[in-house]
Amino acid sequence: MSDHSEYSRGDLRNTGLRLKHDREWDYELDRIAEAIDERDADTVGLQFPEGLKRRAPSVADDIRELVDDVTVLISGQPCYGACDLDTYLMKRTDVFVHFGHSPMKESEKIIYVPLFSNVEVTPIMAEALDTLDDPGVAPEIGLVTTAQHMNRFDEMREFLEDRGYTVRTRRGDDRLTHEGQVLGCNYASADVNADQVLYVGGGKFHPLGLAMEHPEKRVVIADPVNNVVTVADTEQFMKQRFGAVHRAMDAESWGVIFCTKIGQGRWEEAQRILDDNDDAYLLTMDEVTPDRLRNFDVDAFVNTGCPRITTDDGPRFHKPMLTPGEYDAAVGNKPLSEIGFDTFHGTW
Amino acid sequence: MSDHSEYSRGDLRNTGLRLKHDREWDYELDRIAEAIDERDADTVGLQFPEGLKRRAPSVADDIRELVDDVTVLISGQPCYGACDLDTYLMKRTDVFVHFGHSPMKESEKIIYVPLFSNVEVTPIMAEALDTLDDPGVAPEIGLVTTAQHMNRFDEMREFLEDRGYTVRTRRGDDRLTHEGQVLGCNYASADVNADQVLYVGGGKFHPLGLAMEHPEKRVVIADPVNNVVTVADTEQFMKQRFGAVHRAMDAESWGVIFCTKIGQGRWEEAQRILDDNDDAYLLTMDEVTPDRLRNFDVDAFVNTGCPRITTDDGPRFHKPMLTPGEYDAAVGNKPLSEIGFDTFHGTW
Repeated sequence: MSDHSEYSRGDLRNTGLRLKHDREWDYELDRIAEAIDERDADTVGLQFPEGLKRRAPSVADDIRELVDDVTVLISGQPCYGACDLDTYLMKRTDVFVHFGHSPMKESEKIIYVPLFSNVEVTPIMAEALDTLDDPGVAPEIGLVTTAQHMNRFDEMREFLEDRGYTVRTRRGDDRLTHEGQVLGCNYASADVNADQVLYVGGGKFHPLGLAMEHPEKRVVIADPVNNVVTVADTEQFMKQRFGAVHRAMDAESWGVIFCTKIGQGRWEEAQRILDDNDDAYLLTMDEVTPDRLRNFDVDAFVNTGCPRITTDDGPRFHKPMLTPGEYDAAVGNKPLSEIGFDTFHGTW
Repeated sequence: MSDHSEYSRGDLRNTGLRLKHDREWDYELDRIAEAIDERDADTVGLQFPEGLKRRAPSVADDIRELVDDVTVLISGQPCYGACDLDTYLMKRTDVFVHFGHSPMKESEKIIYVPLFSNVEVTPIMAEALDTLDDPGVAPEIGLVTTAQHMNRFDEMREFLEDRGYTVRTRRGDDRLTHEGQVLGCNYASADVNADQVLYVGGGKFHPLGLAMEHPEKRVVIADPVNNVVTVADTEQFMKQRFGAVHRAMDAESWGVIFCTKIGQGRWEEAQRILDDNDDAYLLTMDEVTPDRLRNFDVDAFVNTGCPRITTDDGPRFHKPMLTPGEYDAAVGNKPLSEIGFDTFHGTW
């Protein structure tokens, strides 16, 4: 990602991984050392999310203390999820460890180390009770969280049940590992029979996506990392989205982005738009950044990769950047009123 | 590359490919169409250097007019040379075309389209005669140019010979395609028996590298693109390099960058430094940018990838960034006086 001074409200920088106070993560070093021994590995690759990369040298030190004669390679590629594996490093190391995300797809090649948070969740949930609709009025409630807090999911559920709620949860789809888990691009776990959903977790990135995907639900945020309770408000996002679609309506040429990251490619979507439009050009890249797109002189872009780049970083691009669904509205394939959040399903 | 407001003197943005006036390049469309027909290709991948990416849509249009039913994929990855092939696209398309650079290594898979400049070179060479040492004093002269102007190399040589010079040229090494050709990272073609070298080509990026690699030679620049004659002055560069080495002398931890781009990897160099230093950590990435390195909390970096990122972009990084040779000086493996320009040899 390029340097930029202002971040959108939904950005990932406030979700807990970048907390400044020292927190002891469990890097599961013994499990890693065991895999290195078992495979008689010469090389081990480590991939961390952005907020934890600064810990990489000390984790490398710990591994080198536990095992002899292993070369540790640390991925310097940006990493924004389990969709974003460093496949170069994965293919070229004997043991490859991906930290901080739950498996999008299991593979013998990859050791996923989830890095669960040790932050207490019930105090902020207690504060959230004032903001939630009372169980007398709204007995049913959806409950979701992120991979980081999955270790306390049962505790969250019990807390709500003890207060009289009927807690509705589901696993979502293939892209998700755990019941109640959400990703920035997938909120299938919130497809439950409840008018309000409680999100317990750090930051607004995930609950804003949830609220866009499920505009009919009230999404309450209990954030144990930043210690705040709020209600997700998508108004700013939606205005920005409609603005982008309107600005793209006059576009005479389109750049259609196909993302080459392992878990962010939607080839059929890209091909469909190309087939639909003679003035569409297919652009392939891994990182989708304003700098890279500035080289291309088209009137608008459609991003078939990560939907959050479109919705959260959209205003930073020099031309309107739309999701595939928004493209259909902009060119008149469907009514503007049918624009929805661009959910990403499946793995790879 | 990230957005940045100031460019170093040696940057690539002024070498001709980004000229604003309209210039007709020969994209060799017939050769491309022929390959598509021959291989009965369903997909064709196009990769352009940064300055020509904006032409990609119209080249795609031209190809689609010449052949039916082919999907054109345009690489949106940054591209700074023939060392920088989009291997993802290359592996996944039936025909892969790389524009604007001469082959670093021939392959049946790759069609290289050189894009020769149509700019006249003799007028600016005539102006350069005033700046060059007279053939009466210095009869021997080296002559180098870039891939873009190779089509006029014989004309350049004749021009100098007609004025009484003995023109010394050589091909360089494996990394170079043509006699007299220089790359940003390789000036072996200037290893000739002459005290002055004439560089004919756009910008200062190449001649500054040449002057750093051959500090004993006087390098005169005849720039037919920007229509100026100058003498390469490396003082600013050298001050910056010595400054970086001095700042890195106290470093207690090092990030050693291994570049994963196909033509920019020097594994032995990276491994050598790791073996030499217990406080060195190996970081792997394709694009080496200030943003990516900011995530790593080490005291200094050694870049085993593209040397020009180190020398030209060095001041933009948050910690001193050294070449492998400079690293050796900083840690005391060799005297400071032996620091030289970091030349890149071989292909992949």
